[in-house]
Amino acid sequence: AAAFGATFEENQVQVKNPNLETMEEDILYHLSLSTKTHNLPEMFGDIKFVCVGGSANRMKAFAQFIHKELELSGNPEEITDICEGTDRYCMYKVGPVLSISHGMGVPSISIMLHELIKLLHHAQCQDVVLFRLGTSGGVGLAPGTVVVTEKAVDYSFQPQFEQVVLGKVITRSTELDEEVASELLQCSSELQNIPTVIGNTMCTHDFYEGQGRLDGALCSFSHEDKLEYLRKAYDAGVRNIEMESTVFAAMCRVCGLKAAVVCVTLLNRFEGDQIKSPHDVLVEYQQRPQILVSHFIKKRLGYVV
Amino acid sequence: AAAFGATFEENQVQVKNPNLETMEEDILYHLSLSTKTHNLPEMFGDIKFVCVGGSANRMKAFAQFIHKELELSGNPEEITDICEGTDRYCMYKVGPVLSISHGMGVPSISIMLHELIKLLHHAQCQDVVLFRLGTSGGVGLAPGTVVVTEKAVDYSFQPQFEQVVLGKVITRSTELDEEVASELLQCSSELQNIPTVIGNTMCTHDFYEGQGRLDGALCSFSHEDKLEYLRKAYDAGVRNIEMESTVFAAMCRVCGLKAAVVCVTLLNRFEGDQIKSPHDVLVEYQQRPQILVSHFIKKRLGYVV
Repeated sequence: AAAFGATFEENQVQVKNPNLETMEEDILYHLSLSTKTHNLPEMFGDIKFVCVGGSANRMKAFAQFIHKELELSGNPEEITDICEGTDRYCMYKVGPVLSISHGMGVPSISIMLHELIKLLHHAQCQDVVLFRLGTSGGVGLAPGTVVVTEKAVDYSFQPQFEQVVLGKVITRSTELDEEVASELLQCSSELQNIPTVIGNTMCTHDFYEGQGRLDGALCSFSHEDKLEYLRKAYDAGVRNIEMESTVFAAMCRVCGLKAAVVCVTLLNRFEGDQIKSPHDVLVEYQQRPQILVSHFIKKRLGYVV
Repeated sequence: AAAFGATFEENQVQVKNPNLETMEEDILYHLSLSTKTHNLPEMFGDIKFVCVGGSANRMKAFAQFIHKELELSGNPEEITDICEGTDRYCMYKVGPVLSISHGMGVPSISIMLHELIKLLHHAQCQDVVLFRLGTSGGVGLAPGTVVVTEKAVDYSFQPQFEQVVLGKVITRSTELDEEVASELLQCSSELQNIPTVIGNTMCTHDFYEGQGRLDGALCSFSHEDKLEYLRKAYDAGVRNIEMESTVFAAMCRVCGLKAAVVCVTLLNRFEGDQIKSPHDVLVEYQQRPQILVSHFIKKRLGYVV
């Protein structure tokens, strides 16, 4: 909730770039939208929840799911991709909820977040909460467990994100909103079959060597080396590993956006590297963050008491 | 060409991971392929050229284009996505040519390359050449110029790629194959309207702050700061900026794969940040790397003398 006495502007989505005010047009190139060709306040002004995730199909499925959950009019099968002019990302709007794909890895989600935050700013959106709904490798958890991120940490287990700006490395904090995280944990206790923990999430820049997998095209370490690194991660509070959380947390924080990371674990990395569960089991796991965040949204909107 | 006396194995695609030989099954998760469910030597054993690029639509268009250029039987409109079981990447096979999308950024292409190199290894492919066909920002070049990469460099203009392995940073060389690069330059001189230069390519981990753009959601530097950084890049031989070349060069080199990076510039970064050219102009630009690499492939296969 906004602090008592917060002004109108304080709740608006803030860009941190004075140049934007003087630009005649802003082309959001990778979203295939522009301030000249689209009426962004009309299209997006009522957005309160933005849900992002790696896979285009999964974010379409989430949009259709939340459409049913919010009992909106119209056929959820007929929702259209707002970014259909490009294949970089896809985007669906369902009432006050925006569902967007971001591809894999920090650079891919970073492009989308720059353009999304500008979009929310141009559209004059207020009181927006962002969620990343993802998949991850678990560290000492049963497969299918949902991890709500306490701190997004880097490969050395520090809650920071290194950003290169004009050839110089700067460090940004990756703290997330505590209130949203504990509200999500509360939501999980009100649902059946959504085992959920709060823990740290390690964000790496690749899926194989950086995460200690023994099954990539390149591997120069032993099974024991891998287990030692995972044990160190576990001791530092890491409960899952994915590839986008640090930049997501850092950019949302700089722009004053409340944000949470909600990822299901597809395997326990202490037990293996390959994702071997049957397709239908993996599909069910991937619905868990969606069900949890949908419950959060319904509570905030007063659908559920 | 293979050195005189090269053995059979020397021309094969090499993985650098002894663990793979002892695995009963290898699931290439993000490609939705596996050694148990697919006969990889039968499906891919004749591959000689692998072309990768960020956009799924563009790599499908390239597959259809090379199908026509090689005058193969069958309807190019009916080629099917070999990775249709996943939306992470798409893959098309056209005779000895494989066309694959890799998304945006180093982490995204790195996942694909690990699984692609394992695929080529499992399929016992020999004498494979890899090309990255991409788009980029130009540094002091007219928009539409094709840059064949001499060295892929990082944000400090060094020809290296930093890889984290179990929490430790290691550095890999990003040298590319000189012979393939000069053969590509020769090809460009045999074609109309494919202005081409050889130069260094800077690989960054984001599109906005890391590339000195003034139009992101975050920007803390001035127009002069930006120009100074681009001038330094130009003086270090950088002619274009993209987001995948260093890891592409580094992984291909470690695995003994000949590789080239061929990117068209969509704008001159000294003159602006936003990509403002009309859609049809951008589409024509994006065909230029495809036409150049197609000519290379046709020459190698003896279609063109």
